[in-house]
Amino acid sequence: MIINGRPYRTVWMDDRVIKIINQTLLPGKFEIVSLRDHHEVAKSIRSMVIRGAPAIGAMGAYGLAQAVCQLDRGDLNEIESLKQFLQATRPTAYDLTHALNAVFNKIAREADLPGMQQAGIKAAEAYADQSVEACRKIGEHGNRLIRDGDVILTHCNAGALATVDYGTALAVVRMAHYEGKNIIVYVDETRPRLQGAKLTAWELSQENIKHVIIADNAAGYYMQKGEIDIVITGADRIAANGDAANKIGTYEKAVLARVNDVPFYIAAPISTIDFRCDSGEHIPIEERDESEVLIIDGKRIAPMNSRARNPAFDITPAEYIEGIITEKGIFKPTEIKVLASGNV
Amino acid sequence: MIINGRPYRTVWMDDRVIKIINQTLLPGKFEIVSLRDHHEVAKSIRSMVIRGAPAIGAMGAYGLAQAVCQLDRGDLNEIESLKQFLQATRPTAYDLTHALNAVFNKIAREADLPGMQQAGIKAAEAYADQSVEACRKIGEHGNRLIRDGDVILTHCNAGALATVDYGTALAVVRMAHYEGKNIIVYVDETRPRLQGAKLTAWELSQENIKHVIIADNAAGYYMQKGEIDIVITGADRIAANGDAANKIGTYEKAVLARVNDVPFYIAAPISTIDFRCDSGEHIPIEERDESEVLIIDGKRIAPMNSRARNPAFDITPAEYIEGIITEKGIFKPTEIKVLASGNV
Repeated sequence: MIINGRPYRTVWMDDRVIKIINQTLLPGKFEIVSLRDHHEVAKSIRSMVIRGAPAIGAMGAYGLAQAVCQLDRGDLNEIESLKQFLQATRPTAYDLTHALNAVFNKIAREADLPGMQQAGIKAAEAYADQSVEACRKIGEHGNRLIRDGDVILTHCNAGALATVDYGTALAVVRMAHYEGKNIIVYVDETRPRLQGAKLTAWELSQENIKHVIIADNAAGYYMQKGEIDIVITGADRIAANGDAANKIGTYEKAVLARVNDVPFYIAAPISTIDFRCDSGEHIPIEERDESEVLIIDGKRIAPMNSRARNPAFDITPAEYIEGIITEKGIFKPTEIKVLASGNV
Repeated sequence: MIINGRPYRTVWMDDRVIKIINQTLLPGKFEIVSLRDHHEVAKSIRSMVIRGAPAIGAMGAYGLAQAVCQLDRGDLNEIESLKQFLQATRPTAYDLTHALNAVFNKIAREADLPGMQQAGIKAAEAYADQSVEACRKIGEHGNRLIRDGDVILTHCNAGALATVDYGTALAVVRMAHYEGKNIIVYVDETRPRLQGAKLTAWELSQENIKHVIIADNAAGYYMQKGEIDIVITGADRIAANGDAANKIGTYEKAVLARVNDVPFYIAAPISTIDFRCDSGEHIPIEERDESEVLIIDGKRIAPMNSRARNPAFDITPAEYIEGIITEKGIFKPTEIKVLASGNV
């Protein structure tokens, strides 16, 4: 992605130090954070300094590789523990599991510690590069759905910041924009953490892509008025039957899209699909601290003795999803099982 | 309503000075504002120091009565101009038109200025008292829908603060609570102005009524999980065919309620029904300043060059409304026309 005129990735490794863009300070401040061990990596995921399923995946890959570089001996049980420690940081996103397994499997093939360390770094870098390439292809496939003049609604941030680069839903937006299509993105602000207003709007403004921020409550209004041509969001985990977990509120937009005859698409790399998970009801939904609802930017908005509930994700049933845009093409939710073999 | 253990109304008149609770400072600070002329009255409505259709109605009644008390002569054209000035403060709420007409018609029957002034004050006081009584009856009728143990979802603030007292949706909640029913209110925070988190939660906490604040995005999630038994909101204007304008996001909740088999009710006094308005498409929707979306409590959340759109209301088609709870009972949206004669 372009930031202040220069290309950046969301996460990368520089001499065994992991570097990430601090997403909790945007759009007010652009800052790169250095992470020096797996405790710092885990903390940055939990506190959402980095977020977005594919970005967390790459972060986990780098985190495991880094942790192995800091070991004294090549004990696979210890490496398995580190993997599980990193995996436990956020329960819903599936890419993290996928990435950790990919790196672990490469490490496990090696006989000694130096071999494991080298293999880990190489696997993490390969994972990040493949993730970038997958997102670019998602953008190319999805771009076929976009017509000149379209108004695209998106929810949360499924942008370059949620991946290593390009984004998922925003990869589609970027490719349409790069091709010269005149598009406008309606950005749900996405309470409680406002990733739409803070991150998606920032990415789009950095690349001069036309956009309008709306309260989450207004998405239905614009769909009802016929002003939205297509809805595209990301996903944190997709079950084998096509049910998709994504940021809280996605389900609401999908239902409203259906009622108003607006096509609703999920854009996600195949690493987001959990083929061992039959349906959405088996996807664990993280409930985050109530303070994210009760306090905005350090100021309490609610009465002192009021409580809140704060589910971070919801499940959009496959029946509401027109298609899933992957790096291998666009699939009906019922068709994604063919991707499990890796031979499509 | 009970505030700090003492009974209050949202708006009242004290020696020709209008007193209102300042709703822009809650829940942090409880402050009574004094309004001394129609300019102060108009400003307090526009800036939402007072808001909620029935509350704005009573405010308009008091405002016109006060303005007439400050005239030098009893010129009906001048009084008509004052009425139109007050009516122009907010376009969507119908109660304001209804209240101003009620007071104006009483004033117009008088021959001289002292008579007009006396009639105006009397009509405004009567309007406020009738509004309180209407809300109390809405609560009694609506309470029949509530079972012990119910979880009630509400949107925005349809509470005592949105009326003169009791509220509309919250009148139902209050009556159920006063009767000893064990209920929990799920309160949509209601972006952009957070009337749910700030006002509804405050009213409920003042009277120790169990409640939980949620992001607007989470309402669908809880309906999908079967945790919501009934949705009740207020309305700003109801068309003759039963279409209802209410706070932005209400339409979303109504659609989600239908899809999840949760009954969706509107609670509103008959003064909210605009019988001359055939359907929702003729109700004007106020678009408020984008700063309400871009800035929260004085702090800009969005990038400096991002823009926002901010419709304040949306239209819920009658087909999504199970019933309209009025002071005359609960009616199907298609049945409300019978209330036009005033003889029900």
